[in-house]
Amino acid sequence: MVSKNQLKLITSLHQKKYRNKYNLFVAEGIKVINEYLDAGFELHQLFATSFDAFHSEGKNEVEITETELKKISRLNSPNVGVALFKIPAAKPIVKDKLIVGLDEVNDPGNLGTIIRLCDWFGVRQLVCSENTVDCYNPKVIQATMGSLSRVNVSYISLKTFLTEAELPIFAAMMDGENVYEAHLPENGILIMGNEANGISEEILQAVTKSISIPRFGDLQQTESLNVATATAILLSEFKRR
Amino acid sequence: MVSKNQLKLITSLHQKKYRNKYNLFVAEGIKVINEYLDAGFELHQLFATSFDAFHSEGKNEVEITETELKKISRLNSPNVGVALFKIPAAKPIVKDKLIVGLDEVNDPGNLGTIIRLCDWFGVRQLVCSENTVDCYNPKVIQATMGSLSRVNVSYISLKTFLTEAELPIFAAMMDGENVYEAHLPENGILIMGNEANGISEEILQAVTKSISIPRFGDLQQTESLNVATATAILLSEFKRR
Repeated sequence: MVSKNQLKLITSLHQKKYRNKYNLFVAEGIKVINEYLDAGFELHQLFATSFDAFHSEGKNEVEITETELKKISRLNSPNVGVALFKIPAAKPIVKDKLIVGLDEVNDPGNLGTIIRLCDWFGVRQLVCSENTVDCYNPKVIQATMGSLSRVNVSYISLKTFLTEAELPIFAAMMDGENVYEAHLPENGILIMGNEANGISEEILQAVTKSISIPRFGDLQQTESLNVATATAILLSEFKRR
Repeated sequence: MVSKNQLKLITSLHQKKYRNKYNLFVAEGIKVINEYLDAGFELHQLFATSFDAFHSEGKNEVEITETELKKISRLNSPNVGVALFKIPAAKPIVKDKLIVGLDEVNDPGNLGTIIRLCDWFGVRQLVCSENTVDCYNPKVIQATMGSLSRVNVSYISLKTFLTEAELPIFAAMMDGENVYEAHLPENGILIMGNEANGISEEILQAVTKSISIPRFGDLQQTESLNVATATAILLSEFKRR
C-alpha cells in the first residue's frame, strides 16, 4: 500500500527542489529500474504490483495495487513499478581526454540523449552550467538508464571551469570551421549550447575554436540541427581516426 | 469562433484514419505554422487569437478566444494559433544519389528528427515501410517544420522497392562493419530499423552490407544508440569526404 505521505513524496520528486531536499530521484518501469539497480544505485523504495521481474532481491519493496501504480506513475502505460533511488554524492571532475560541456541545455530529452552519447563514445565527464536541466529530472532518468552510472555529470560554473582547464576548447556554432576539415585533438573540451540561443557570450570568450557541421541541403533552410543530434555527429568526429 | 463540428474535425485529425479521410493535417504555433506557409503548403483554416504574427495574409482565418485555443491545442503552452493544412498529393520517388529507408520506425519524434537530418544532409528521398509512423502525425509535423517540403516521404512496400532498386543497400546493425572503415559510395540506400527490433528478416535479405557505429565506452553497456542519433552519425559518414 502507498500511504498518503509516500504519494506526496513521490509526486514532490518531480521538482528539483524536493529531489535536493530528500536526496532521492524517481525511476519507472522494469527495464529502467533494473538498469539503475544493476548499475549500483542505492534503492530507497520500490513500489510495484509484483517483484518477479526486478533485481531488487527483496529489499525495500512495497507491494501496491494496479490503481495505486496508476496514481504514482507518470508514464502513459505504467510498467509494474516505480522506484525511488538515492542521489549519489557528487564526484570530483574526471580529467579525462575528451570532456563535453553544456551551456544551458534545457530539454531533459536532449540531456538524456547526450549522456547516452557520452557513454557510447567513452566520454567519462560531462560538465554542465548551473542553469542546465537537472540530470535527476524524471525524463532524463528514463532516457539515460544505466549511462548515468558511467558518465560523471557535474554542475559547476562553466566559465570558471573553462578558464582554469588548460585544454583546447571547441564550440559547436553555426558559423565555425567545417568539422570535417578541422584538426580535432584527443584532449579537449567540446561545448554545446542552449536549444534556442546557442552558447552564451561569456562562455564564447573562453573558446579556442568554433566548429560547424556543414549543411548539404538547400541553403534557404533556416533550422539548425537539434543539439543532441549535433552532439552525436561531433562526438563521432572527435573519436573516429 | 470554433464551431462544434470544427472542434470535432480538429480533434479527429490526431488519428491517421481521419487525416486520410479529410486529407488534412494539424500544425501549431507561430513558428511552425509560418514554416509550413512559407514552404507552400496549402492552408485550409487557421484558428488564432490574433493574426499579426502569421504569414497567412488574411486567407482562411478564423478568430478564436484564448479559451477556444486551449480547447483545440495539444501543446502544454498553446501558442496563438492552430492551423489545418491540406496533405499534398504523393509524389513519385526521387531517384537521388543517397536514399534513406525506414523499416517500421514507430516513434514520431524519431521520424521528425530523421526528416530534418535528411534535409540537412541533402537527402531528397525517404522511403518508409507501410508500418512506419505517419509523417503527418502532429508530433512529426511539430518536429520537422519546413523540412517536410524538401524531403519526399513515400510509404511503400520496402521489400519490393529494395529488390528493384539496383543500388547498394546498407543496413545499420549492431554487428556490421565499422562504418569508419567501410567504403560508402555516393549512390546507395541506407536502411534504419525499428526502435526495439531493428531491421526485419525480410528486409535484411535484400541488404548488400551491414554497417555499425563502433562503441568507444565500456563493453558491458548493453543499450544501443537511439535510431535518430544513429542516423545522424551514419548520414554524416556518407556525406563527409
